Amino acid sequence: MKVSIVGVTGYSGLELLRYLRQHPFVEVVSIHSHSMNKKSLEDVTPHLKQLISLPLEKIDPDEIMKKSDLVFLATPSGISKELALPFIEADFPVIDLSGDFRLKEVGEYENWYGTTGASIDILQKFDYGLAEYRDKPLSKWIANPGCYATAAELSLAPLLKSDKLALDSIVIDAKSGISGAGKGLSQMTHYTETHDNMTLYKMNSHQHIPEIIQQLKKWEPRLSAIQFSTSLIPVTRGIFLTAYAKLKEPISDEKLVQLYQAHFEKSPFIRVQEVGHYPVLKQVIGSNYCDIGLAYNPKMNMITIVTVIDNLGKGAAGQAIQNLNIFAGFDERCGLDHIPIYP
Amino acid sequence: MKVSIVGVTGYSGLELLRYLRQHPFVEVVSIHSHSMNKKSLEDVTPHLKQLISLPLEKIDPDEIMKKSDLVFLATPSGISKELALPFIEADFPVIDLSGDFRLKEVGEYENWYGTTGASIDILQKFDYGLAEYRDKPLSKWIANPGCYATAAELSLAPLLKSDKLALDSIVIDAKSGISGAGKGLSQMTHYTETHDNMTLYKMNSHQHIPEIIQQLKKWEPRLSAIQFSTSLIPVTRGIFLTAYAKLKEPISDEKLVQLYQAHFEKSPFIRVQEVGHYPVLKQVIGSNYCDIGLAYNPKMNMITIVTVIDNLGKGAAGQAIQNLNIFAGFDERCGLDHIPIYP
Amino acid sequence: MKVSIVGVTGYSGLELLRYLRQHPFVEVVSIHSHSMNKKSLEDVTPHLKQLISLPLEKIDPDEIMKKSDLVFLATPSGISKELALPFIEADFPVIDLSGDFRLKEVGEYENWYGTTGASIDILQKFDYGLAEYRDKPLSKWIANPGCYATAAELSLAPLLKSDKLALDSIVIDAKSGISGAGKGLSQMTHYTETHDNMTLYKMNSHQHIPEIIQQLKKWEPRLSAIQFSTSLIPVTRGIFLTAYAKLKEPISDEKLVQLYQAHFEKSPFIRVQEVGHYPVLKQVIGSNYCDIGLAYNPKMNMITIVTVIDNLGKGAAGQAIQNLNIFAGFDERCGLDHIPIYP
Amino acid sequence: MKVSIVGVTGYSGLELLRYLRQHPFVEVVSIHSHSMNKKSLEDVTPHLKQLISLPLEKIDPDEIMKKSDLVFLATPSGISKELALPFIEADFPVIDLSGDFRLKEVGEYENWYGTTGASIDILQKFDYGLAEYRDKPLSKWIANPGCYATAAELSLAPLLKSDKLALDSIVIDAKSGISGAGKGLSQMTHYTETHDNMTLYKMNSHQHIPEIIQQLKKWEPRLSAIQFSTSLIPVTRGIFLTAYAKLKEPISDEKLVQLYQAHFEKSPFIRVQEVGHYPVLKQVIGSNYCDIGLAYNPKMNMITIVTVIDNLGKGAAGQAIQNLNIFAGFDERCGLDHIPIYP
Repeated sequence: MKVSIVGVTGYSGLELLRYLRQHPFVEVVSIHSHSMNKKSLEDVTPHLKQLISLPLEKIDPDEIMKKSDLVFLATPSGISKELALPFIEADFPVIDLSGDFRLKEVGEYENWYGTTGASIDILQKFDYGLAEYRDKPLSKWIANPGCYATAAELSLAPLLKSDKLALDSIVIDAKSGISGAGKGLSQMTHYTETHDNMTLYKMNSHQHIPEIIQQLKKWEPRLSAIQFSTSLIPVTRGIFLTAYAKLKEPISDEKLVQLYQAHFEKSPFIRVQEVGHYPVLKQVIGSNYCDIGLAYNPKMNMITIVTVIDNLGKGAAGQAIQNLNIFAGFDERCGLDHIPIYP
Repeated sequence: MKVSIVGVTGYSGLELLRYLRQHPFVEVVSIHSHSMNKKSLEDVTPHLKQLISLPLEKIDPDEIMKKSDLVFLATPSGISKELALPFIEADFPVIDLSGDFRLKEVGEYENWYGTTGASIDILQKFDYGLAEYRDKPLSKWIANPGCYATAAELSLAPLLKSDKLALDSIVIDAKSGISGAGKGLSQMTHYTETHDNMTLYKMNSHQHIPEIIQQLKKWEPRLSAIQFSTSLIPVTRGIFLTAYAKLKEPISDEKLVQLYQAHFEKSPFIRVQEVGHYPVLKQVIGSNYCDIGLAYNPKMNMITIVTVIDNLGKGAAGQAIQNLNIFAGFDERCGLDHIPIYP
Repeated sequence: MKVSIVGVTGYSGLELLRYLRQHPFVEVVSIHSHSMNKKSLEDVTPHLKQLISLPLEKIDPDEIMKKSDLVFLATPSGISKELALPFIEADFPVIDLSGDFRLKEVGEYENWYGTTGASIDILQKFDYGLAEYRDKPLSKWIANPGCYATAAELSLAPLLKSDKLALDSIVIDAKSGISGAGKGLSQMTHYTETHDNMTLYKMNSHQHIPEIIQQLKKWEPRLSAIQFSTSLIPVTRGIFLTAYAKLKEPISDEKLVQLYQAHFEKSPFIRVQEVGHYPVLKQVIGSNYCDIGLAYNPKMNMITIVTVIDNLGKGAAGQAIQNLNIFAGFDERCGLDHIPIYP
Repeated sequence: MKVSIVGVTGYSGLELLRYLRQHPFVEVVSIHSHSMNKKSLEDVTPHLKQLISLPLEKIDPDEIMKKSDLVFLATPSGISKELALPFIEADFPVIDLSGDFRLKEVGEYENWYGTTGASIDILQKFDYGLAEYRDKPLSKWIANPGCYATAAELSLAPLLKSDKLALDSIVIDAKSGISGAGKGLSQMTHYTETHDNMTLYKMNSHQHIPEIIQQLKKWEPRLSAIQFSTSLIPVTRGIFLTAYAKLKEPISDEKLVQLYQAHFEKSPFIRVQEVGHYPVLKQVIGSNYCDIGLAYNPKMNMITIVTVIDNLGKGAAGQAIQNLNIFAGFDERCGLDHIPIYP
């Protein structure tokens, strides 16, 4: 299978390139960048020296469709909604890593992203690509989920789908590494302001909130709101998400872990930790794993869920390739079964 | 006023020394260490070279009481409960920074710390030193609060004392820098395991839980439990605490901020942020400030409280000196009104 | 004494404010910023909330000279050379923290900074403010030295002035924290590019090279060149400088340390480490200290000098205040004798 | 080919496991640990959960030799010298990652490591495994080079072998991430002491000094000493080495780069940077690459060489596998041609 990557110089684009080098059935045949046209990729990203012989090309959909079988759009929200159109028109498969095709309700995009979103008929074509719960039949257009959204949805799925949660009690405290903010320059990504620091941002206004609620509602239509906070921690990669919720009835730690283990039995990238064990952020870095630890507090009748992913892995490029594998009929693990980088 | 510091080579002890150098009315007349007897302090801590001429002495209560007017015990929990006895017997003032004299109910210490605690009559002598809410009349024995406990209690006080909280809904997600774990060596403090990492530890079992509940109950006896998590983030200093709770009735962000500003009007170290502003961790480092930001989410009828302190400042040495100032009748701000170190 | 700070929102300006708050004889009476006019300082820098009541003003030399006795220019190189002129014309004291008045030879500024420098008569008015070696009589215009230059010059002074060095053998490998690059946004200060990284920059072209050579030549006119490299390390503050040079004749470690101790006997901010001890970066952070460790390697007839300073302390604001103290006739240590922040 | 890893729970052992998972011709058939016998590997290192089904076994040479074709000893210096003996006696291939078999001169090991070394006949059996310069014929016993030594030797080889260096002028200033200190607990690896810090250690006494000199002497017997310093920087992985040396005759930057490019033309893991480009530490992390940048300073007639490796990659596990590939007749790049992890 031949693929092209648009937006290859961003962090998610580079990570697609890194993962796909190890994929047994996929070849990257062209790489594209809006801003860097004609520069050599290794000038921009010296870690690739002597590793990538492809030239950095401008974005020409016709050329891409001639060469490739599928295109990854690793472009920012707001850009993808235009870039994707010629591909859709030509019935050509797209995996989009931005937020542009995730929200299905008219007006929601504008509410949370602040600009007009894609049209409703385009939105309906896209499959929300939470890989463990993809809709059947599969669409050839995939909206890859947000990093926070992936972690939040996987954290709550087993309890929500088994109707165990008090619906108005969900609190999610999510922390992200700085690569989640992308390569753009801002005070928030300035080393001196970020190092040794922690910052809560987009209080009650993060654009992943409607995305999470949309997905949770698929599983439990009576759910209407969650409390969701996002903070930056001084690491390059990773999301550390702590979710709290009250239960309808008491449970034991053992039962809780069993419920999750059973639920994710056929999900090779979800690793439910044993009773009394909680994942640390580092144990998934560089990989597509999502590791989940669980505890029940009888004094509050509340569960704590600790979930870690690599925001560039399961939160972006890793899940995009997992989605590609599902779409193409490959084993889900193709190109993704390496060991996380540790320490 | 003359004071002695026991446990001066630990992080809290060193921070006492740093703050007290700037105190206009207090002189450190002797410094003591269990483990480092006879070594020069500047061998252990080279940043003090040429700054401290006092010798490092062994701990001799009689000698200390001869020289000093008050002793700081900056010793670990489990050590202070023995060390303090001769001072108490001699009716000599003590400010203890450990957890040994904070929990007032018999058996609670053993439940959470795992060893037998101080006797009930000793415990009753100690004033729990949350400086903004000290009991009157003042005791000459002060149990300086825990770092997490300080941040948690100050976060919730205004809402709890004004009876606005749904009592069974309090969730606290607290993050701490690594200096909170002290100078001891362990896998948890190993650089390679901690850097670029985040870890939730002591799930539902942190020893500050009963301390927080004890204090909250003073303000609202009907409260019986909280959800409280502690995680390590890769910074040296600082606690970043996010608290969530449901309200009995809706409120606006403006009213919420006004409530806190009014409540803390006479508390010079509590800086309530304006509406829409949330503190970052770095803005209190090296200081005794506790900065609090507030938001109300009408969709959940839930408030979010973001509170930051320096765990060695307001969470330990800073508050200990604030307690000393209150005890001695000095202005609360003496020795504590410098600017936080930034960046 | 009343002073004004121009460029107060930069890192050096903020550090001046922090140090001067503790100065017994100096009062900051006005603060100024080019870019932030009319904003409140605490909006820009929330760590100052409730600490600074002065408004942020635009830069009006006449107003400054009415209110103050001296002005600090904590402005970038290229800006100071214009800003300083009205003050000089009015015979008003200036301490400038930029590179604009350090290089005394015509054309040198343009060679290394890339734009036209100040005129020769202005340059001659400025005293190069390496505090330990200030020229007598003192000028009222002080060019505060560069951070790297300060560390390099103090490292080599005792050996160079005692004619012990093989002059063509000096190699300086200097590492700096990221605050040295200032608040400006660039790929070099982007967290994700800087964290967990190390980068050599300005190979053989750093603008402190001619500054260092100019000073070393004052002590040893036969010296003509040095090898000098600058790298960024992932810390906020601090310069860690390692200097190597061959000796004319062998020496012992003891003699070497004695030479430095004797040389700096009356320099309270230079702390020469004992034989076999080398300073770590952290031991000077937040302070004006410059700590120096020394070793002799007989196999190479070469000495290694390890020197650490805080780039915002002895490398900028600290030394500027030390220069103020010397100029004003105060004790050199006024406002600077606090303990470094550790850990 | 079947291999066993002894010392698999250390950082180098884990990295061998990570690399070998991607090797097309090598299977890890058993893993061993002295201290962790019978524990499950995923308890010790949770990032491996569900990835390694092999049990953690005690070290039984006979069992290993039955199952495997080669054994990696990823054990500390001082341990390998005993562990290796039964394998050597049985004529069984060993790649040892410790320092125990690198120094060939009698007494040198004791001088620098402080304990008695291996016997001379054992030492002579071992091939010093600097992969780019392996001796022919190949031995079946390989002493994998030290991390600093690898970077230093590769930095200087082209100039030294072409007789361009002034031999008494070599100064190497090497900086290492903390994983180089291993998993052991010490004040040096305590997060709070290491973060935001930089420390020069083992002044003129690092055990890689004799290793480097031994190798450089092979290329230039007249060389007798180098100046070599080692410092810790606050990163997990990586060595950033800056080497300085005077030349016998002037050279241009272009010629210098050409010399290195020609020299390393057939070395796929040495990436010589273009003129004016210098490698950053991050560009080799997670890989076996050694990236080298070069500059000539005519004022000093001195070259600066900037060399970066991952201390666990080219400095340990990566080079060990490269050595395995050479020994087994595989393409050198097998299992090692993935993209470094960036950012």
